[in-house]
Amino acid sequence: MPFKTFDELREACHALSDGDEGSASAVAARQDTLTKPQGSLGRLETLVGWLARWQRRPMPKLDKVKVIVFAGSHGVTAQGVSAFPAEVTAQMVANFAGGGAAINQLARQAGAELLVVPLEIDRPTGDFTQTVAMDDADFLAAVSTGYDSVSADLDLLCLGEMGIGNTTTAAALATALFGGGALKWVGRGTGVDDAGLYRKTTAIEKAIALHGDVLSDPLRIAAALGGRELAAMLGAALAARKLGVPLMLDGFVTTAAVAPLAKLHLAGLAHALSGHVSAEAGHRALLEALGLEPLLNLGMRLGEGSAGCLAINILRGALACHTGMASFAEAGVSDG
Amino acid sequence: MPFKTFDELREACHALSDGDEGSASAVAARQDTLTKPQGSLGRLETLVGWLARWQRRPMPKLDKVKVIVFAGSHGVTAQGVSAFPAEVTAQMVANFAGGGAAINQLARQAGAELLVVPLEIDRPTGDFTQTVAMDDADFLAAVSTGYDSVSADLDLLCLGEMGIGNTTTAAALATALFGGGALKWVGRGTGVDDAGLYRKTTAIEKAIALHGDVLSDPLRIAAALGGRELAAMLGAALAARKLGVPLMLDGFVTTAAVAPLAKLHLAGLAHALSGHVSAEAGHRALLEALGLEPLLNLGMRLGEGSAGCLAINILRGALACHTGMASFAEAGVSDG
Repeated sequence: MPFKTFDELREACHALSDGDEGSASAVAARQDTLTKPQGSLGRLETLVGWLARWQRRPMPKLDKVKVIVFAGSHGVTAQGVSAFPAEVTAQMVANFAGGGAAINQLARQAGAELLVVPLEIDRPTGDFTQTVAMDDADFLAAVSTGYDSVSADLDLLCLGEMGIGNTTTAAALATALFGGGALKWVGRGTGVDDAGLYRKTTAIEKAIALHGDVLSDPLRIAAALGGRELAAMLGAALAARKLGVPLMLDGFVTTAAVAPLAKLHLAGLAHALSGHVSAEAGHRALLEALGLEPLLNLGMRLGEGSAGCLAINILRGALACHTGMASFAEAGVSDG
Repeated sequence: MPFKTFDELREACHALSDGDEGSASAVAARQDTLTKPQGSLGRLETLVGWLARWQRRPMPKLDKVKVIVFAGSHGVTAQGVSAFPAEVTAQMVANFAGGGAAINQLARQAGAELLVVPLEIDRPTGDFTQTVAMDDADFLAAVSTGYDSVSADLDLLCLGEMGIGNTTTAAALATALFGGGALKWVGRGTGVDDAGLYRKTTAIEKAIALHGDVLSDPLRIAAALGGRELAAMLGAALAARKLGVPLMLDGFVTTAAVAPLAKLHLAGLAHALSGHVSAEAGHRALLEALGLEPLLNLGMRLGEGSAGCLAINILRGALACHTGMASFAEAGVSDG
């Protein structure tokens, strides 16, 4: 287990490694020789530079791309915060195994391997309106599971999640980390009505009042108000940074899960790309708080890593141009 | 040649076929049974409905997807409207044949066949600041070439173009069709400086004054102020509608090329999807004038069909979910 204490985890968050600016510069220099007006591939050009910076090599690859869907169960579902019953988490994990979910189709279409990691889904976290979601050992175990799920041979890791109740968890984290009140961060999740939205808001307000003593500590926030799948994503994001694996975020929950890194280190999420701004109400504000510019805006709000997979295809297009295009000199095209 | 007279062409534009609402409804009904909260795939769900409507079958396909890049030469380059010399059009057609351009990489990555159709690129159109770009026979020949390039076995057609000077041509068309003055529609194209931008604007203002007699006729506008590759795209869009082939638009030039259809028929572009809003200045306004909502916004301004190909991947993801996902009943998942 990589993290046996909060202090070990905190130290790892403070000691994040840098990207390789030389590799990013090499990409920019090559881009300007290719047969297109300079800058005309727009964001595709900077995306390749980002891949190079965090893979730490001047010619990046996307040969081995993995989507990991972390699943967890949430005690706060007792507060009536979801449109779906809590047992749907386990049912959807079975659906992932059977190949019937959206992420199965989208991972395949993106050329990504899919791994599903359930985190004790038969043992929900504590209801954070009453107690901490996870004690220290529980939280560190989940972070460690996520950390250990990432291998150095990956060229890109896409985070995904499943957990009935976890948009409430994510909104609680965002409220605790960034303030502004629960109403700024709650949304309809899988589709709650106005009464459900009110219950979500109330649950978060209760939790913020109950856990006031940890609100200055991003890691304690993640333990008290988070969930196991969110803790695992935090661990996976840490491992990706350490191992030179660029990170693709999906929606509101994945973004909230890794947000503590940005609170602990100024460049804590520099290796992360936002694949999509979700239709979930708080996501845009959260991306803005983190300085992340989403690649796509397709009105999705499913989670699972679904929108992240669509964004992988954009990265593949960007990389295909970078590696496959001829230079002006090679093609005998007059440069402007 | 399908169109020997303007009247034949005009008649075809007025007699556009409808989509199949029954097929679109069947898609919507199936979407609501799949293992996801209703509507949570956002725009992916309506995209599949759009494919079904215009392929006119309840279970659409994307087995045979083609990108056609039409290339043409523009007399208006004599006015100094481009950052690149006019011979680059032919050089880039050679680069397409050699596989070295962005579109070669992006078409392959999108699983699309690439066809390049040069339209007499050694014979530029007339300089529309002095005369008509094309006489009747020239214009109808280009429209017909585009029309004949589309076959009924396609599941999707993506339009692309290459032609030094053609953002000026496209801006001239937009000015003539939608008004508002040349400044509303001109942009920096491949990268002109302020002086070049002024020359583009002046050229369009001269053309609008010179061709005032045709400004009430969208097809005459396309002949007097257009270009051969734009005329061919208009023909291809007509054929796609006739043959049940949904149409993917790329950037500013492809959009301007097909815009006359929307002027001639209220639902003239209902079978067209905007793949991307370009960084070219006038594109967003043009999409708004046509009621088209772009799928992507990646700051690209290359043309060639490049952004359209990236959008094809989004369609593929949408279709993969629709065809591959399990229903709530099949997967044994509790419905909310």
